[in-house]
Amino acid sequence: MRILHHFPLSPYCRKVRLTLGEKRLPFEPLTERVWENRPEFARLNPAQEVPVLVEDNGLVVPDSSVICEYLEEAYPDPCLLGRTLAERVEVRRLVAWFDSVFARDVTRKLLGEKVFKRLSGRGNPDGTALREGYANIRPHLDYIGQLAEARTWLAGGTLSLADFAAAAHVSCLDFIGDIDWSKQPAAREWYARVKSRPCFRPLLNDRVPGMNPPEYYANLDF
Amino acid sequence: MRILHHFPLSPYCRKVRLTLGEKRLPFEPLTERVWENRPEFARLNPAQEVPVLVEDNGLVVPDSSVICEYLEEAYPDPCLLGRTLAERVEVRRLVAWFDSVFARDVTRKLLGEKVFKRLSGRGNPDGTALREGYANIRPHLDYIGQLAEARTWLAGGTLSLADFAAAAHVSCLDFIGDIDWSKQPAAREWYARVKSRPCFRPLLNDRVPGMNPPEYYANLDF
Repeated sequence: MRILHHFPLSPYCRKVRLTLGEKRLPFEPLTERVWENRPEFARLNPAQEVPVLVEDNGLVVPDSSVICEYLEEAYPDPCLLGRTLAERVEVRRLVAWFDSVFARDVTRKLLGEKVFKRLSGRGNPDGTALREGYANIRPHLDYIGQLAEARTWLAGGTLSLADFAAAAHVSCLDFIGDIDWSKQPAAREWYARVKSRPCFRPLLNDRVPGMNPPEYYANLDF
Repeated sequence: MRILHHFPLSPYCRKVRLTLGEKRLPFEPLTERVWENRPEFARLNPAQEVPVLVEDNGLVVPDSSVICEYLEEAYPDPCLLGRTLAERVEVRRLVAWFDSVFARDVTRKLLGEKVFKRLSGRGNPDGTALREGYANIRPHLDYIGQLAEARTWLAGGTLSLADFAAAAHVSCLDFIGDIDWSKQPAAREWYARVKSRPCFRPLLNDRVPGMNPPEYYANLDF
């Protein structure tokens, strides 16, 4: 059975889980707490980061962007990267934007400070980072709303990896109750559509010891 | 004419310049100082980062990894990403490792602190970051040496984007004189081979006002 080494509240792992689910590729999820520095895991991925996919034939694929490019080449149906060169540029551009800019401005400052710092025993959240994260979240969700209003899905007419990358970050922030949906009607409508896909269901059942998501987290109608 | 918005000492821009050169795709390089926040550039790339490629047909391609995937699909010869699924995983794994782990542990701490902080007027280098960068550079160059000794090129039997990603970071650090080649014979032998390729020549002629690279920087026999 295909194995995915992951952590439930990692947006990069969630992006891969959504991609595997949408492509109907069964896998066994194994939770890895990278901060415990297990030597067996370091041998699997010298970068010591999740996610890492291990295929039935033994092929080890680390890094969420490498995994998603691999899955698209190995299992092209359904296509999640776009068909034309221009479509593929736009999907990859948005994935890179969420995984670097959105991550730097919002996810790392809120989820990183409030969850991963505590889990890995690196102390209390930094107040400056939290303030910056809360200031950045609104314009960045506005951007999602603008894209969703101008197009059917974030990168164009069809569901793509861009929606999964965005929803992966958004769902982690929603888990810790950091999104005020009342102020984001367009982003909310888009997120409700992604959330209602079958591939999303396992993410809504994620639980992390000592943390409870808000009641609306798993509701499809929130 | 194809345009590349870039900055000479950005490893991400250098990776793209090497790729364009190896594929013999002519381009006009335009230097962009992103910290000047030009509105025209922000409209071109909302992430406000270099590199950005603009094709003759008007297609705008931002982000070095998006550009390299695009170039490989639009101009597949010579192939720089590997042929089999496993080869492509290994090339992309190494590119991701250099552009995230090596960048975080070394490039950002040395080049970021000594060059980009000064250029963008953000003050003096942080002593702790410099010490960490110098401590990390040796094991990371050892890793390049191990790969180069076990294989012909970093990702396997043929030159690939992994070599260009690695050489892009290494060449920027070499420009600021931060690499002690006497301690890295295997990495040095690999770097000499990459450096002698025609696509590398423009990088050796880069100059940044107020900064002089060491004399051996542009020598093919160093």
